[in-house]
Amino acid sequence: MNQTVGSPTLKLYGYWRSSAAYRVRIALNLKGMAFENLPVHLVKDGGQQHSADYKALNPQGLVPLLVDGDVRISQSLAILEYLEEVFPLPSLLPDDPADRARVRSLALHIACDLHPLNNLRVLQYLSGTLGVDDAAKQQWIQHWISTGLAGVEQGLAAFDGKLSLGRRPGYLEACLIPQVYNARRFACDLNAYPRILQMTEQCESLEAFSKAAPEVQPDAQ
Amino acid sequence: MNQTVGSPTLKLYGYWRSSAAYRVRIALNLKGMAFENLPVHLVKDGGQQHSADYKALNPQGLVPLLVDGDVRISQSLAILEYLEEVFPLPSLLPDDPADRARVRSLALHIACDLHPLNNLRVLQYLSGTLGVDDAAKQQWIQHWISTGLAGVEQGLAAFDGKLSLGRRPGYLEACLIPQVYNARRFACDLNAYPRILQMTEQCESLEAFSKAAPEVQPDAQ
Repeated sequence: MNQTVGSPTLKLYGYWRSSAAYRVRIALNLKGMAFENLPVHLVKDGGQQHSADYKALNPQGLVPLLVDGDVRISQSLAILEYLEEVFPLPSLLPDDPADRARVRSLALHIACDLHPLNNLRVLQYLSGTLGVDDAAKQQWIQHWISTGLAGVEQGLAAFDGKLSLGRRPGYLEACLIPQVYNARRFACDLNAYPRILQMTEQCESLEAFSKAAPEVQPDAQ
Repeated sequence: MNQTVGSPTLKLYGYWRSSAAYRVRIALNLKGMAFENLPVHLVKDGGQQHSADYKALNPQGLVPLLVDGDVRISQSLAILEYLEEVFPLPSLLPDDPADRARVRSLALHIACDLHPLNNLRVLQYLSGTLGVDDAAKQQWIQHWISTGLAGVEQGLAAFDGKLSLGRRPGYLEACLIPQVYNARRFACDLNAYPRILQMTEQCESLEAFSKAAPEVQPDAQ
């Protein structure tokens, strides 16, 4: 680590509506860390994430990317783990390894098995290459959201008492709230998920979450 | 943690050809930990992962699931993090936080942006619900594999010197080798990825990897 004295300003390359960038904004806010927001427009110019300049920074060609001095990190959950290791307090994870695993399991269920199926490049492939019409695409989106959120809801139920809803929001909420935002954007009915709705309501009243919301980002359209 | 004296035998619910279960088998072998292999057939009986009995254990209805005494953990990367925290040696991750982030970033690129797009339930949706034919499905599979592996290859190139190929295999290799197995299964050309091929060759000579291979699992068909 080549941290200069006082730590260099963290830079976050993101996009206002990227669910993965939204996770990192929440995590940085929860840790009370200042950061410079650098927008990468995922649609304009054929997708600025594909530009040679951006891919020199992040060969994966995706947002978000966190830059901390000479360290560059892509993948939102790798960024959350890094923040947790380098700036440990306040912590985003519980102390007990079993509880940490429960939190990571639900967060990864969202990050691996729900969100990637509905992100922009996949929807572009469905309509562009496979010629899927809008109604079938909407059905695809809703299918994966409802399958994934049902798993999270049941996981929260199973962990009740062990994963108290009253604890400080962190890693899981940083993944869940952006996913709920997406679900609402695609008009999914969320009434079957009372625990998720309760968690969302609790988080939305906090500044760390409201400041991270897509609509209030400088590049929001 | 309610570890009994001498630690209970770890149980791994998996499926021989599940890439995510394969990751966990490798990680357990690298740590030299004994485990009981409990097959969940992903196709037979309409998919045993959907059964009420299995979903009572894992509400996400997916494999793998690790059971350590009264702790149940789903999601392969949550399992790897748990193993790393509870049984720290030998470590699956480098010591330096920036290197750890580099490793996690590439592993998550596979686990989030590559593998979920090609797993069984998604391919079933493509052919079953969307009526995508075999040729287009094969093209879909190859598209996401080549996009993802190109990102990993370029990431390895960018990290060279920082992420020495000579170090002990761990977290990244546990994700990469199962993905290479999948790529070969779907006849993808891997010649554009010399670093990945070198890493694979190095790992395949190790018992931790050969013992975890799909073909030698008791439920392999």
